Amino acid sequence: MLAAGGGIDKWWAMFNIHDDDAVRDILERHRIGNVKDYVPQPVVSLEDQWAAEPTRADGLRVLNSRPFNAETPEAALREYITPTELFFVRGHMPVPDLKNRPDFCVMVEGEGMDARCFTVEDLKRQFEEHTETVTIQCGGNRRTTMEAAYAADGAKGVKGLSWKGGAIGTADWTGVYLRDVIAACQVEPPYDPASYHVQFEGADRDAAGHFQASIPYNMATSPDADVLIAYKMNGEDLPPDHGYPLRAIVPGVVGVRNCKFLQRVTVQPDECESVWQQNDYKNFPSYETKPNHSYPSIYYMPVQSQLTHAAYNPEADAIQLQAYAYAGGGRGIQRVEVSHDNGRSFEYAATLQPRPQTGAASQEEASFPHERQWAWRQVVADTPVKDIKAAPVVRGDGTKVYLTCIRAVTTDNEVQPAVAPYNFRGLLYNGYSCKDIAVK
Amino acid sequence: MLAAGGGIDKWWAMFNIHDDDAVRDILERHRIGNVKDYVPQPVVSLEDQWAAEPTRADGLRVLNSRPFNAETPEAALREYITPTELFFVRGHMPVPDLKNRPDFCVMVEGEGMDARCFTVEDLKRQFEEHTETVTIQCGGNRRTTMEAAYAADGAKGVKGLSWKGGAIGTADWTGVYLRDVIAACQVEPPYDPASYHVQFEGADRDAAGHFQASIPYNMATSPDADVLIAYKMNGEDLPPDHGYPLRAIVPGVVGVRNCKFLQRVTVQPDECESVWQQNDYKNFPSYETKPNHSYPSIYYMPVQSQLTHAAYNPEADAIQLQAYAYAGGGRGIQRVEVSHDNGRSFEYAATLQPRPQTGAASQEEASFPHERQWAWRQVVADTPVKDIKAAPVVRGDGTKVYLTCIRAVTTDNEVQPAVAPYNFRGLLYNGYSCKDIAVK
Repeated sequence: MLAAGGGIDKWWAMFNIHDDDAVRDILERHRIGNVKDYVPQPVVSLEDQWAAEPTRADGLRVLNSRPFNAETPEAALREYITPTELFFVRGHMPVPDLKNRPDFCVMVEGEGMDARCFTVEDLKRQFEEHTETVTIQCGGNRRTTMEAAYAADGAKGVKGLSWKGGAIGTADWTGVYLRDVIAACQVEPPYDPASYHVQFEGADRDAAGHFQASIPYNMATSPDADVLIAYKMNGEDLPPDHGYPLRAIVPGVVGVRNCKFLQRVTVQPDECESVWQQNDYKNFPSYETKPNHSYPSIYYMPVQSQLTHAAYNPEADAIQLQAYAYAGGGRGIQRVEVSHDNGRSFEYAATLQPRPQTGAASQEEASFPHERQWAWRQVVADTPVKDIKAAPVVRGDGTKVYLTCIRAVTTDNEVQPAVAPYNFRGLLYNGYSCKDIAVK
Repeated sequence: MLAAGGGIDKWWAMFNIHDDDAVRDILERHRIGNVKDYVPQPVVSLEDQWAAEPTRADGLRVLNSRPFNAETPEAALREYITPTELFFVRGHMPVPDLKNRPDFCVMVEGEGMDARCFTVEDLKRQFEEHTETVTIQCGGNRRTTMEAAYAADGAKGVKGLSWKGGAIGTADWTGVYLRDVIAACQVEPPYDPASYHVQFEGADRDAAGHFQASIPYNMATSPDADVLIAYKMNGEDLPPDHGYPLRAIVPGVVGVRNCKFLQRVTVQPDECESVWQQNDYKNFPSYETKPNHSYPSIYYMPVQSQLTHAAYNPEADAIQLQAYAYAGGGRGIQRVEVSHDNGRSFEYAATLQPRPQTGAASQEEASFPHERQWAWRQVVADTPVKDIKAAPVVRGDGTKVYLTCIRAVTTDNEVQPAVAPYNFRGLLYNGYSCKDIAVK
């Protein structure tokens, strides 16, 4: 431990995200006493840990600087392909300096494997290149909506960064299929593929070790799962914030499993032991208040939608909406319904925008029983006020207000709940997305 | 048309389900006049259409006698394998007389196919036998709960049989894989498997024709979908009410596609044109009030659970619950949460009962990315009142009442909504299952 036997000031120098009152309160409860005649040592600078942090675009909504976490601004969420420089960044650690490591390679190893390390050039030379258009969503996206939904319940806090709804984005990811790389190294397949896992390790690290996460072996190797070792995002080399030079892209699966700075792939009998696999990014039941290994790790994300624009246009006397809608596991969006009475009734469907041609090798069309719709749909609705059946709420000053909500329905007939289950880590929130719209 | 140019009394003789005030009201609105000097002819007896109706068990809850529709009683819903004689029956037409048709065969034909007709003996002799434990649920299961949920909205009726929650059941189905049979007849696969369909036709019929339904070609032929042409239910020949001698079993898919009395399988470019595919058993949006071909046919059922027992036990001073939980598409149940304050908060998880060994060839374990959990889970919870955190509602007479609800969460992190979307045909209802429990 970085702080073992010493002050924890240097931890806070590295991870300012933890330097807050809540952590100080926790530490206070564990205070045994004060060391007699303790003279704090000057904090050793860890500034070099952050030396490789890239310059970021001004438009990002920054939630934390070290590690860097920022969400995509609303306007950019309305584009089918999220501009690379405005794609949300979820960093757990400093960005490693890999720009000056031409020999960097990803080690592929594990049970029944002939261990080999592949540079980007090795991958390009030895395997077929594929591009997949994939939406990546952080497990904590829309945490602020969960906070608001459970604010009335005083006992229940929600722990984590306050993502509004911009911890999601879509890009064309180019690389090679993980299944091809594993097959090339495989001497004999593991004993029971159904229970095995493939662990990813990033080159990013803190004093406790590297970032790690895993996915089931069958997902990693299935021809239907399209898992990539990617080296390009929207046609360019991966930027440092998105994992340069290599990143695991796991379509339909929560962001945290899409390991950045990929330096190691390990086939193994067990799920990853890291905190991001065992203590967090889990589907904690609504009655749970602390991390517990026994709950299931999150892979597929539930059906999601979020308003990205909702406003009254006085010229047209119409309410105009835009939104994104997404479901994990490759499932498609069947429709998005619109309510103007706070979700009591839904009056009509928004229009699912056609997918633009992206120039990427086209993704295969969805087919039963396994769909492969890896990317979100963009949604619009433009409704003249005269066509709205719901009665507006009339405020004290006479303003008429529509309590506008949307909900998405998947191709397998699942629907967003009005309010999603409480999760003390603020994960998996997918309740109706609502906004009050005043009409003049 | 049976009634063309004549009275419709004989329709009602065949389908008494339509002989109700609502239909008479509709007809009244279309009355042009009365035929002068009309002397009604005696109704020709269609009694022979119903000659093959089997004797049914007393325990079934009968909703309609012709065609026969009945649901499984609550006690039987608590067994993992539903007793055959108490398995819900959803009949659309008279049961055909196939017991005296030893030459009965299922014709397999269509585009790129060498048409062949298989008797049960042919299937047994020519193909490998498989048993799958599969839950079948009618698309209208829990329609009464939807009716109650939307009763406050006077404008919205719900059309269909009043299934409480017993239009679901689990059996061991034995037969041969449809994919093997199609492969045996296939000269060349259809041009675009992703868009093709496989249509089922039953030997049951009315004056307008045979029962028909279809599923996507890729579902019919996928090694992961396990679609059967079944000839046994729980180890015995299929009973007449469940499709003797042959039935399509489509795991994870709404009951109506599990075609009984299977006499024809057709590979074709388009979805089935029958009313059960085009006018009904569709995911109608909540704002729709009449059939419309353009909406998607239902295949996979959303996550479902229903209390099958909920009572206060005064000896133990405990609330005791039993339930089933199920999700379509082969997805598993991750947990079932229990609330005692009408779903405002959920306090703990019920216990998912282990699957009993059924004697059937064991179903493959679920694996990512495609799970194959075709059967429901049985669920129990036994909670001392002193352990319940929620405050009971106190009625006027001093009775304390807990408003107990359950909700299920799938392995892909979807959760039941508090109230499911309105569907004018009463389909896909999967809102929380609740019951008021008085505590003495």
